[in-house]
Amino acid sequence: MKSITSRDNAQYKELKQLATSSQARRKAGRTLLDGVHLCETWLQLRGAPEQCIVSESALHHPEVAAIVMQLQAHHAHCLSLPDALYNAISQVEHGVGLMFMVETPQRETPAALSVNAVLLDNLQDPGNVGSILRSAAAAGIKEVYCSPGTAFCWSPKVLRAAMGAHFVLDIFENVELAPLLEKSRIATLATSGYAKQRLYDVDLRQPVAWVLGHEGQGVSDELLSLARHQVVIPHLGKVESLNVAACAAVCFFEQVRQNQA
Amino acid sequence: MKSITSRDNAQYKELKQLATSSQARRKAGRTLLDGVHLCETWLQLRGAPEQCIVSESALHHPEVAAIVMQLQAHHAHCLSLPDALYNAISQVEHGVGLMFMVETPQRETPAALSVNAVLLDNLQDPGNVGSILRSAAAAGIKEVYCSPGTAFCWSPKVLRAAMGAHFVLDIFENVELAPLLEKSRIATLATSGYAKQRLYDVDLRQPVAWVLGHEGQGVSDELLSLARHQVVIPHLGKVESLNVAACAAVCFFEQVRQNQA
Repeated sequence: MKSITSRDNAQYKELKQLATSSQARRKAGRTLLDGVHLCETWLQLRGAPEQCIVSESALHHPEVAAIVMQLQAHHAHCLSLPDALYNAISQVEHGVGLMFMVETPQRETPAALSVNAVLLDNLQDPGNVGSILRSAAAAGIKEVYCSPGTAFCWSPKVLRAAMGAHFVLDIFENVELAPLLEKSRIATLATSGYAKQRLYDVDLRQPVAWVLGHEGQGVSDELLSLARHQVVIPHLGKVESLNVAACAAVCFFEQVRQNQA
Repeated sequence: MKSITSRDNAQYKELKQLATSSQARRKAGRTLLDGVHLCETWLQLRGAPEQCIVSESALHHPEVAAIVMQLQAHHAHCLSLPDALYNAISQVEHGVGLMFMVETPQRETPAALSVNAVLLDNLQDPGNVGSILRSAAAAGIKEVYCSPGTAFCWSPKVLRAAMGAHFVLDIFENVELAPLLEKSRIATLATSGYAKQRLYDVDLRQPVAWVLGHEGQGVSDELLSLARHQVVIPHLGKVESLNVAACAAVCFFEQVRQNQA
C-alpha cells in the first residue's frame, strides 16, 4: 500500500483541497466519503471507490483492515496516512480513520419530472439538505433537484447527515427549478405556511414532486405560483413553522401512508 | 445603560461562562438567548428578561433599539458591550448583536404522564433535540422529558434549532424515564426500526407519550419493553432508518392528522 508522510506531497494537497473546498469538489467531480458507515454503504451499493484512504492507526482496526484487504485483492488504490495527516483532512471526530475518494455521479437532467421527486429551492443548511435526502430515500423518492443557491450535496456535512442516501438517489444540482415545474408531467406541491390546502387533503397516490424552500424565506413566490398545489402542515402551537427537514419528512411519509392505505 | 469594556470584568466573565459552558448554565439556572428572533419570541411569550445584552453597533439597529428602549422603560437591566466583547460570547454569525439572559424555568416533574409528551432517551445531537422541540410545539405537544444522557436543552445550539419552542413547552431534564413509563396514565409509544406495528395502525386520537432514542442505538431495550406500543415508520428505500428528528416529526404529525380527521 502506498503511504504519504509529507504535508507537501502533491497528492496529499489534492486530498486536503477536496476535504475543505466545495469548489474543489465540484471542479474535480470527486468527493470524500468520511467514516466507516458511509464507506461501507458505498461498497454495498456502488462497489469499489476510486481510492481508499486510511489512517495508520485504523489499519489495526479489524473492520477497516478487512475493507482494505478486500479492496487490495481487487487492485483498488489504497493509501495510508500518518494519523496527524489523516486527521487534518477528516471531519469525523473520534472516527476510526477510513475514507473513500469517489467520483460524484454526473447525470443529464431529465427533460421533465415524471417520477417522485424533491426540488430544493435555495436551502442553505447542509444538515437540513442531508436529512431531506435521507428521508427522501427512506420514503422511496428517486430524484432530487437542487437550485443554484442550495448547499452542495456532495460536501462532507451533507454526506454525513444523509447516511448514504446519496448512493440510491439521482441528484441533480445547479438546476433552474421554474422550467421544471412549468413542464412537469406529475403533480407539483410546494409547502407554505400561508397555504390554505392541508397536506392531508391532497391525493398523493400518484407520483409527486415536492418543492421545499429556504430556511427563512420558504419557497420563492415564483415557484409557489408555478406549483399545482400549495400545501400547509397544520400547526397547533404558538411558535413558528417547522424546520424544513421536519416538514419534508412529514410530507414524504404522508405520501407513503396514503400509498399503503 | 451600563457598559462593560474590559474582558476582566467579573460580570463579563460570568456571561462568558454562561455562553460556553453547559455546566455553568445548569449551575446558575440561567441561559443566554442569542439573536433577535429568540429574544423577540421570549418577549412575546414570557415578558422581560433578567438582563438584555447588546453590542454597541446593534444599538444603531432600529429593531434592537426599539427593544432596548421598551425594556429600559420597564426598568429592565440592559448592558452594552463593545462588538469584540459581544462577539466573543455570541455564537450567531453575522447576527445583529442582541442577547437576553433568562432564568431557565424549573418545574417539579409531574408524578405521572397524563398529557401529550415526548421522552428523549439519550439523544446526543443538539440540532436534533432542538428540531424535536420545535416539531413538538408545532404539533401541540406540551411536555418534554429528557433522560440524564440527553443534550442539555438550554444550550445555545438547542435553543437556536428550536426557534422559541422552549418557551411554550414544559421541559423536564435529568429525568429517569423508566419509572415514568411504568406509571404512565396515557398510551406510550416507542419508535423502533424493528417494530412490527406500523405507526399508521395505532389509534392516536388520545393523549400519547412518544419515546425517541439515541441517534445510533435507538431507544434502549429497557424502555422499549416498558412502552405499550413499539411502532415503526415503514421504509421503502435501501438505506438506513430516518434521522431521529425526522422520525419525531412524522410521528407527531400523524397524531395531528388523526385528530383532525
